[in-house]
Amino acid sequence: MKAISSSCIHHHLPVAHHRRTNQTFIIRGFQEVATLPKQQSASSRLSQSFSNLLRLHVDTPPRTDFQSSTGISLIDEKHSTPTCSPKEDISNKWSEIHGSCDWDNLLDPLQPWLRREIVKYGEFAQATYDAFDFDSFSEYCGSCRYNQHKLFKELGLEKNGYMVSKYIYAMSHIDVPQWLERSHLLDTWSKDSNWMGYVAVSDDQESRRIGRRDIVVSWRGTVAPSEWYEDFQRKLEPVGSGEAKVEHGFLSIYTSKRESSRYNKSSASDQVMKEVTRLVQLYKQRGEQVSLTITGHSLGGALALLNAYEAATSLPGLPISVISFGAPRVGNIAFRDELHQLGVKTLRVVVKQDMVPRMPGLVFNERLQKFDDITGTLKWVYTHVGAELKLDVQSSPYLKRGFNLPGFHSLETYLHLIDGFHSKTSTFREGARRDIALVNKACDMLVDELRIPHAWYQFANKGLVRNAHGRWVKQVRDPEDIPSPARETHHQAFSVEMLATDEGLALTLC
Amino acid sequence: MKAISSSCIHHHLPVAHHRRTNQTFIIRGFQEVATLPKQQSASSRLSQSFSNLLRLHVDTPPRTDFQSSTGISLIDEKHSTPTCSPKEDISNKWSEIHGSCDWDNLLDPLQPWLRREIVKYGEFAQATYDAFDFDSFSEYCGSCRYNQHKLFKELGLEKNGYMVSKYIYAMSHIDVPQWLERSHLLDTWSKDSNWMGYVAVSDDQESRRIGRRDIVVSWRGTVAPSEWYEDFQRKLEPVGSGEAKVEHGFLSIYTSKRESSRYNKSSASDQVMKEVTRLVQLYKQRGEQVSLTITGHSLGGALALLNAYEAATSLPGLPISVISFGAPRVGNIAFRDELHQLGVKTLRVVVKQDMVPRMPGLVFNERLQKFDDITGTLKWVYTHVGAELKLDVQSSPYLKRGFNLPGFHSLETYLHLIDGFHSKTSTFREGARRDIALVNKACDMLVDELRIPHAWYQFANKGLVRNAHGRWVKQVRDPEDIPSPARETHHQAFSVEMLATDEGLALTLC
Repeated sequence: MKAISSSCIHHHLPVAHHRRTNQTFIIRGFQEVATLPKQQSASSRLSQSFSNLLRLHVDTPPRTDFQSSTGISLIDEKHSTPTCSPKEDISNKWSEIHGSCDWDNLLDPLQPWLRREIVKYGEFAQATYDAFDFDSFSEYCGSCRYNQHKLFKELGLEKNGYMVSKYIYAMSHIDVPQWLERSHLLDTWSKDSNWMGYVAVSDDQESRRIGRRDIVVSWRGTVAPSEWYEDFQRKLEPVGSGEAKVEHGFLSIYTSKRESSRYNKSSASDQVMKEVTRLVQLYKQRGEQVSLTITGHSLGGALALLNAYEAATSLPGLPISVISFGAPRVGNIAFRDELHQLGVKTLRVVVKQDMVPRMPGLVFNERLQKFDDITGTLKWVYTHVGAELKLDVQSSPYLKRGFNLPGFHSLETYLHLIDGFHSKTSTFREGARRDIALVNKACDMLVDELRIPHAWYQFANKGLVRNAHGRWVKQVRDPEDIPSPARETHHQAFSVEMLATDEGLALTLC
Repeated sequence: MKAISSSCIHHHLPVAHHRRTNQTFIIRGFQEVATLPKQQSASSRLSQSFSNLLRLHVDTPPRTDFQSSTGISLIDEKHSTPTCSPKEDISNKWSEIHGSCDWDNLLDPLQPWLRREIVKYGEFAQATYDAFDFDSFSEYCGSCRYNQHKLFKELGLEKNGYMVSKYIYAMSHIDVPQWLERSHLLDTWSKDSNWMGYVAVSDDQESRRIGRRDIVVSWRGTVAPSEWYEDFQRKLEPVGSGEAKVEHGFLSIYTSKRESSRYNKSSASDQVMKEVTRLVQLYKQRGEQVSLTITGHSLGGALALLNAYEAATSLPGLPISVISFGAPRVGNIAFRDELHQLGVKTLRVVVKQDMVPRMPGLVFNERLQKFDDITGTLKWVYTHVGAELKLDVQSSPYLKRGFNLPGFHSLETYLHLIDGFHSKTSTFREGARRDIALVNKACDMLVDELRIPHAWYQFANKGLVRNAHGRWVKQVRDPEDIPSPARETHHQAFSVEMLATDEGLALTLC
């Protein structure tokens, strides 16, 4: 059956031309088919799905016009394949996936069930960009464009089976290199805060599939250039009671608050810890296994580590892992060691060509450890934390070869490369299903043959709409999407009241 | 009544802060109100409209938050005013409007009824940009995005009371400086032609209002930089039987054809003359007064002149006028003189700061005429034609003051300045109603206080849409909007058959 499926499927799947090696290879949409017998033993429901897929595609009439002259051909054909694999039951693997064994022997080759989870968390991080209001002419610049109940629906992420329970806002002391997205207008939703991420929790069905109630914190990063991170190298600041030190700027964003602020009367740290604590108590009271997974890209990855450090300190015994993408270094070696002792598991996904993970500490970093005698206690040397999954832009035949810093750092590039990663020595995974067009959302990384415009993620007419009088005006934001601390507090209070009942579960989240 | 209306209206109309003179002045949406008594005598229907408008606005409750700190304030208020004035009956002025007296004494001050007609023709020219497919990743790059029956509806131009009767396509000899918009793809709707404009005709109601059946030819220009025009200065070519010479490149685009071409088996010249001749015969047979008005911006203005020259030669007695915007010079003095003798009336609208009207012939132009002895017969010297309406970017308080070549040349800048022009010595017209946001469609000319993003005329996600499988793909063009010479010829043949009947009138156009 394997042989049949392979030959039938390849007939109508796109053929890609590898530009560098000049070899033609098949881009298969269904790697899983080849592993069908193994999957069957794991879950009969799953194998049923595969059979359906298989039948569907064997039925497709063969095409004769396979190869066009554009190099990567018949890419249109791939347009009718699903963008992700069917979800399998991974409840018996959750602890491994969550890093209980530091992802030893899971990363090379990368286990398919782990890959899909990493992509899931990456999509949670990507959501913080996709929904962020970057429009400096908008009075809501720096906020989330949708309220928390609509976020996943608007972004097509309902498939992941999580619900947003709280938005996080952050500000910073004024001495932090400029990171706040600000409106040009004077009358805005907030003068000093930005939407910085959210807390979400797995629903019943997803919790059953993944073996525990998973609380996710997703931190927004920044699209700032790598020089921006170098500016952060200026000042390490103590955290906790020991020798641990972290970068002052990251800590400032995580901990700053101001009484006069509309959204940061409490800090991002206070907001997130209060909500995570509430959810942990809620589900523990219900006798459930609970985990905390913190994710973020770039600056968001740095905040994820600070958040994990605090959560591990104040919620001992809770399994905590961080899955970060293109994150800079955050603290010194003592910080790393404390995180390790606290049991925080960190998986850092890094693209080899991306500069940001080398910041801060391009020169003074953990590699100097061998010069311990010279550098002394290394209290001031930045270091990375945890396991690393290293990706290579050159592994993908879909990506341009030129030097492209924003492209290398883009989270969508990361997600594409994860999707295509099998092992360090193998070529781009033939069964990669993630929509390749997403890579060019905000950069210019895809080869021209794919015909995907660069930086295509944009609003019609930059958000202007023609009103009844024929005038082009800013589209008015749906009132329920206008940020309002009062409403958000009200929801919070309401959901706390509803904790006790079973029916209240959904209500605690909406 | 005048006093009442003024004070009431000013209360709720936006107050603009003139940046250069530091004076605050009122931007009135209703200049016409002040001239009400005069307008009343001209048309009782019109004065009724004004009364309605007046009542509407006197009823508006007064606002107290007039002045914000942004300089130009309460611009939102203006969003609920109409974008154009009510249409008045100008049937007794049509000949003057069409240039019978070379627009003597009509341009300074500019007569309101003439201004509105100039804007109308300018919008016909603007339509050729707004509907043009510039997407080099599209297989339809270089075509019109809509079929001729939908064009005006899609662009909100139905209000003008015209119907498109034919699309014009053009190609050129290969030695013309590159102007063709081409797809990156190999399999495209046309290898060698671009949509270059259209022929339209006034409907019955508009014909009654403007005093004749008006046939319009609108020629698309180019967004090429001014250097592009300088390249055209290379070669003058004879046209007609006399001394007249015109720029080789313009003539090439106007007259080129090729048997192997899909859209230019006949030249743009052949296409347009065949259609214009057909329409003139049709309406003359019906005993109607007919006029031909040819419009275009930039390169389109140059083609308009060539078209007018040919039409005047082959359709003697037909009133022909050209209204061009930011057009370069086209031919020599003999060409100008012949146009004059043929009775072609030309109104050139020019922005003082725009470089393109100075091309080709930045050095050798009609100003050298006084050096006739030196330059001889001036056969090779480029010259402008007809009456000039000169506009000044500095007259508008809404426009940025910086040097901005694309902005100065943009047709939307022209239309904004015409709308605000009263006379050479007066400030920007207080009653200008045209939507200011349009200026920034494709450039960055508006002052920041207006909060209009620059270059905002764009598609959502650059035309990508999410398909049923969750993949982002090029939106498939509506089959009826896919260019097809066969269908267009069929429509043409059908409409010729229907000439005779009264009911056939609409059918000849659809």
